[in-house]
Amino acid sequence: MAFRTFIAALALSASFTAPAFAQDAAAAKTALAGDYDRIVAELITLTEIPAPPFGEQARAAYFVKAFKDLGLAEVAIDAEGNVTGIRRGTVSAGGPLVAISAHLDTVFPKGTDVKVRREGNTLNAPGVGDDTVGLAGMLGWIRALNAAKTTTKHDILFVATVGEEGPGDLRGVRHLFTKSGYKDRIAAFISFDGSDPSRIVNQAVGSKRYNIAFTGPGGHSYGAFGIVNPMAAMADAVKRLYETDVPSTPRTSFAAGVVSGGTSVNSIPDRIELQVDMRSPDPKALDRLEKRFLAIVDEAVAAENYARSTNVGEIGAEKTRIGDRPAGATAESHPLVVTSQRVLTDHGFPTQFQASSTDSNIPMSLGIPAITIGTGGGGGRAHSVDEYTNIERNAFIGGLSSGLAVVVAVANLDWAVK
Amino acid sequence: MAFRTFIAALALSASFTAPAFAQDAAAAKTALAGDYDRIVAELITLTEIPAPPFGEQARAAYFVKAFKDLGLAEVAIDAEGNVTGIRRGTVSAGGPLVAISAHLDTVFPKGTDVKVRREGNTLNAPGVGDDTVGLAGMLGWIRALNAAKTTTKHDILFVATVGEEGPGDLRGVRHLFTKSGYKDRIAAFISFDGSDPSRIVNQAVGSKRYNIAFTGPGGHSYGAFGIVNPMAAMADAVKRLYETDVPSTPRTSFAAGVVSGGTSVNSIPDRIELQVDMRSPDPKALDRLEKRFLAIVDEAVAAENYARSTNVGEIGAEKTRIGDRPAGATAESHPLVVTSQRVLTDHGFPTQFQASSTDSNIPMSLGIPAITIGTGGGGGRAHSVDEYTNIERNAFIGGLSSGLAVVVAVANLDWAVK
Repeated sequence: MAFRTFIAALALSASFTAPAFAQDAAAAKTALAGDYDRIVAELITLTEIPAPPFGEQARAAYFVKAFKDLGLAEVAIDAEGNVTGIRRGTVSAGGPLVAISAHLDTVFPKGTDVKVRREGNTLNAPGVGDDTVGLAGMLGWIRALNAAKTTTKHDILFVATVGEEGPGDLRGVRHLFTKSGYKDRIAAFISFDGSDPSRIVNQAVGSKRYNIAFTGPGGHSYGAFGIVNPMAAMADAVKRLYETDVPSTPRTSFAAGVVSGGTSVNSIPDRIELQVDMRSPDPKALDRLEKRFLAIVDEAVAAENYARSTNVGEIGAEKTRIGDRPAGATAESHPLVVTSQRVLTDHGFPTQFQASSTDSNIPMSLGIPAITIGTGGGGGRAHSVDEYTNIERNAFIGGLSSGLAVVVAVANLDWAVK
Repeated sequence: MAFRTFIAALALSASFTAPAFAQDAAAAKTALAGDYDRIVAELITLTEIPAPPFGEQARAAYFVKAFKDLGLAEVAIDAEGNVTGIRRGTVSAGGPLVAISAHLDTVFPKGTDVKVRREGNTLNAPGVGDDTVGLAGMLGWIRALNAAKTTTKHDILFVATVGEEGPGDLRGVRHLFTKSGYKDRIAAFISFDGSDPSRIVNQAVGSKRYNIAFTGPGGHSYGAFGIVNPMAAMADAVKRLYETDVPSTPRTSFAAGVVSGGTSVNSIPDRIELQVDMRSPDPKALDRLEKRFLAIVDEAVAAENYARSTNVGEIGAEKTRIGDRPAGATAESHPLVVTSQRVLTDHGFPTQFQASSTDSNIPMSLGIPAITIGTGGGGGRAHSVDEYTNIERNAFIGGLSSGLAVVVAVANLDWAVK
């Protein structure tokens, strides 16, 4: 892993307001505004290409073609399924670059109706805002930068990532920062996620997720009464978890979210599965909670094996980590954050800092400057089938313009990696 | 409900060995032996008519035709779906009768492959033994009684019941004894269930079954952390149940058998459903356990509403009784039991007394003499898709003959109801 440094922050915070850059962004923004109809059309097209977790291939193919048509260099699908392409900067090739991403996947399972329904200035469809508006915006920005012949100091690596949502467990961005050919060159990372430009996610809420399968011999509810029951072990574990104290600052949480098991009311089950989610922006607090939870599972198993007969078999627990999103943060004083906030404020978006779980979790956890922001005209009901995004011309172009300006400003900062 | 008395037990226990009856049974048994091929063929035919819980209609239609073809009187499907028909005795019509039953339903859900696979002397198919062998045997007995012109003192009410298995909750036999036109005339009841003639079920294990839906507001696992969770209430209830002491004599049991709920690992669920089974042959012990369990549910709900925030909603519990099988018994000294045991022993089946949950639960709970016994050549793996029954000629006819002899003997006892 490379060690990144940010050079001469004071100089840079001056440089990004330098007339040349401001002029470049202005020309690109004019081009963007003229591209409104095409961006909206492409947003609809992209939304209607299903992209369930682990099923992003069709959208990825669209992006390979789009990136090539837009003249990006090194266009490729990497081993995990991310689509990458480079827009050259004025600094020498192979040097530090700025990665700009949006995620290809939606939370919606295969078979979900993704037909877009337009009502006035609103587009309604699952995934339209999270994160298809980011994807369509990214293509719009590249077209605008090309049309305006805008240059940036650094190469910009455009990335359409896979696996941002739930079960994907950040697999795309994880690959990008740990295995891809660009992993040692990314100096800063911005994930454009969702349609709200008035927040900057600079804290990564880490999470650990487990599926615990409590197993046992099972048997007839009456004939085998007195033998160990994995249901009792599961209940004991949940009860012990809910008696656990966690820090409130930083906010640290646990949840027993899903449970299932048993074949009939008149049988002692042989398997009960429990899914638990633990979160914290503090890696140490999260690690402590994870260790405590795993100890609780062992305690509950031992207690049940002690409480009832193990003559025909014992209770066991299969612990499978099904999610691992590292915690991390980018300081509010970091030039990436300061620069982005200033640009957004200049565009009429007074931003708030937030903690969330996004593609930025991975770079933040590795100490690489990263933020997640939204773009577009606003929207809501993400992760529900009622999801919508606003495409009213002024709001939509205003939001996209702010994102484009952030990209240009950040790519003109003086980044270094070593 | 009628009050039944058993008259002159001593005289009767002599009478069932009287030469006339023995001769009648012998002639019928000879006819039965000659009918082997047809009984086996009909067993296969019946097994291959699916009869899931609440889906017994096709088998019922078969029995209506069969009962009519065999010359039974008053052949009908009652309001619950049982098929009934009477073979007249020599005592005046409308008097006490003996009910002989087998159950139409299997435990297997709609869509289960019920094709019979024959391997030598074994028939393999779901439901073939439990209780199709009882159904086929009953038709064989009626044919044999007709062929031998065997008479009995009392009318015999042949019944093919619905709803014996799990979710059916004894609905067929419950209707027979509480609502049917025969409810005040049945002096004794024998359920032929399964293919093992070496046991007499004279104790009815009562059961109470509940589905408890723990409900709550639900929410985001991180954003809403601190609110009440129905999962925690469910776990608390299971833990309290498993800390409950129950009598070991008579054997009293509980089991948390099935659990499900939650939509995703990163959500606090809004509904968790738990199914619990409680059993005892002692009605008082079962009632006490039921009351304690319902109190436990309330305690767990209250504890969770106290432990965490109810700002956005409280935990509740919807308690649905999904099963209620009353306990009961027929004394080992009762002439029905004594007579049946002696006949079975004479046929080479030294029988053991057992406690179980069968169609006899209902009459036993009402104080009406009842037993459940098996018939046929033995088998195993009931309630599994590997179920099988043995049709080796001697064993099969031997078992069926013992059942036929029990029917004749019991129908020749002196029964009265008033």
